Amino acid sequence: MELELIDWLRERCPATPQIPLSVGDDAAIIRLSAGRQGVVTTDMLMDGVDFRLGEHSPQQIGRKALAASISDLAAMAAYPVAAFVSVALPKSAGNDLGRELISGMLPLAEEMHCPLAGGDTNSWNEKLVISVTAIGETEPDKAWRRSGAQPGDIVLATGMFGGSILGHHLDFQPRLQEALWLAERFNVHAAIDVSDGLSLDLWRISQASGCGAELWPEVVPLSAAAREAAKKDGRKPLEHALSDGEDFELLLCLPPEDAHRLRLMTWPFDVPRTCIGQIVEQPGLWQRVKGELVPLPPQGYLHG
Amino acid sequence: MELELIDWLRERCPATPQIPLSVGDDAAIIRLSAGRQGVVTTDMLMDGVDFRLGEHSPQQIGRKALAASISDLAAMAAYPVAAFVSVALPKSAGNDLGRELISGMLPLAEEMHCPLAGGDTNSWNEKLVISVTAIGETEPDKAWRRSGAQPGDIVLATGMFGGSILGHHLDFQPRLQEALWLAERFNVHAAIDVSDGLSLDLWRISQASGCGAELWPEVVPLSAAAREAAKKDGRKPLEHALSDGEDFELLLCLPPEDAHRLRLMTWPFDVPRTCIGQIVEQPGLWQRVKGELVPLPPQGYLHG
Repeated sequence: MELELIDWLRERCPATPQIPLSVGDDAAIIRLSAGRQGVVTTDMLMDGVDFRLGEHSPQQIGRKALAASISDLAAMAAYPVAAFVSVALPKSAGNDLGRELISGMLPLAEEMHCPLAGGDTNSWNEKLVISVTAIGETEPDKAWRRSGAQPGDIVLATGMFGGSILGHHLDFQPRLQEALWLAERFNVHAAIDVSDGLSLDLWRISQASGCGAELWPEVVPLSAAAREAAKKDGRKPLEHALSDGEDFELLLCLPPEDAHRLRLMTWPFDVPRTCIGQIVEQPGLWQRVKGELVPLPPQGYLHG
Repeated sequence: MELELIDWLRERCPATPQIPLSVGDDAAIIRLSAGRQGVVTTDMLMDGVDFRLGEHSPQQIGRKALAASISDLAAMAAYPVAAFVSVALPKSAGNDLGRELISGMLPLAEEMHCPLAGGDTNSWNEKLVISVTAIGETEPDKAWRRSGAQPGDIVLATGMFGGSILGHHLDFQPRLQEALWLAERFNVHAAIDVSDGLSLDLWRISQASGCGAELWPEVVPLSAAAREAAKKDGRKPLEHALSDGEDFELLLCLPPEDAHRLRLMTWPFDVPRTCIGQIVEQPGLWQRVKGELVPLPPQGYLHG
């Protein structure tokens, strides 16, 4: 990151005292708490693919880039340590774009206790690219993975699904607090954040775990945006909820007794949580029709 | 990183046993050695700025991206832990570009004990962008910084300088082994890797340390490429050596007694090491003319 930008950042985002961290020179120094293990996630967002500069404000774009990485930390139940931001700024966009992007990140960085600790600022004659690497920490072997789901597990989802493209993909809230709260209280076997589509990401978690998943379509929470998107294109709201990308909600697999215990507890968050299915032995994604499991083709966004 | 690419990578680069690390899901898990602190550096390289796809091979480009990050770790005397690679691949370049980039990184990753542990693969209709984040570790408070130089320190440089654009910027060797060897034996006060020009980066180290630097131009090692570049453009080889970017050599500031002790020791590396100047109290960059310090304007590449 340019020295000038680091100085600007230092004034606005002094490293939070409880997270020992120092802005380095060519590199930043981080300290993990004693005995903790590190978790590293990296996401690259490009103009015209993940956002549209001009249509979306630099602040919205910056926030989304950081939020996507923090959502990855949430999906592993990791406490944020620091984030690093590299950008390729289009020369045509003017000198302030870098600062505007960062200023869109700062409120979320503060809220999530994830200081921006470094990066690399570049400019070129092409479109805007942002790469965020976030580092988190967990107790040893306590990070959630995609691969631990077991037949019988209940699939729990945060939030509502579908139609994110209408706006929610820019202002979603990473479910970090919810993840950390659940991790402290329950035996979560597997987790993922829904970036590419509810049905696709549920299929991925079951596939990574060597089993399958039965989805209960009738209880999937439909967002207002899913209904709005359905009005626009004539598809069903449920189709949007199952296949639209970038909801950034969490799917978690819990043993039935934990799911039951969770239902009896006070849930201290505004976002709803819903049991939307169950892990089954038979690999694949399924729904039940007249008592029989029938295939439900996973749909969503495939990168490539 | 796409699952398919991770699988491909796993086959070719199994995590080195002495570096406990596992390829995660949305994130990778890293473990620092007990009591060590982490060092994080991130670099973004863009087609047309840092390399030219078509003119340079994907393998060369991939290697350069990783080498630049490892050079940053070397400048802090940090042992590599893992690297993370995000790419925006131009759709026009074909499906193999991602793998070719990674295949150019793997030999260096292995040589430097820096496994590729994750990343994010994307494609778009614009030019190639690569972002590498490297994580290293050091003993607590043992990371070299730019800011510790003291008046009287001798400035030591590895390698030769100038004309990197003629090819060396693609095949340079990060001075990691040299850095770790020096860190174990000497009291290095400050260090930097020369990415933007010898005189500019020497000025930066002195400025960060609140002092100045006297450069001894007559002893700066001139690379063959500096002479070649000078023939082409009529400037002096020394000018190239002082102002050309991307030499990726190290500048180190050592107390005189350590510099003396180093001179008496067997230097077990092929690359030359040369004392090229001295830290002075008076801020600025200087050279001595007829016994008097006169200003030497720092020159090099300023990121924009």
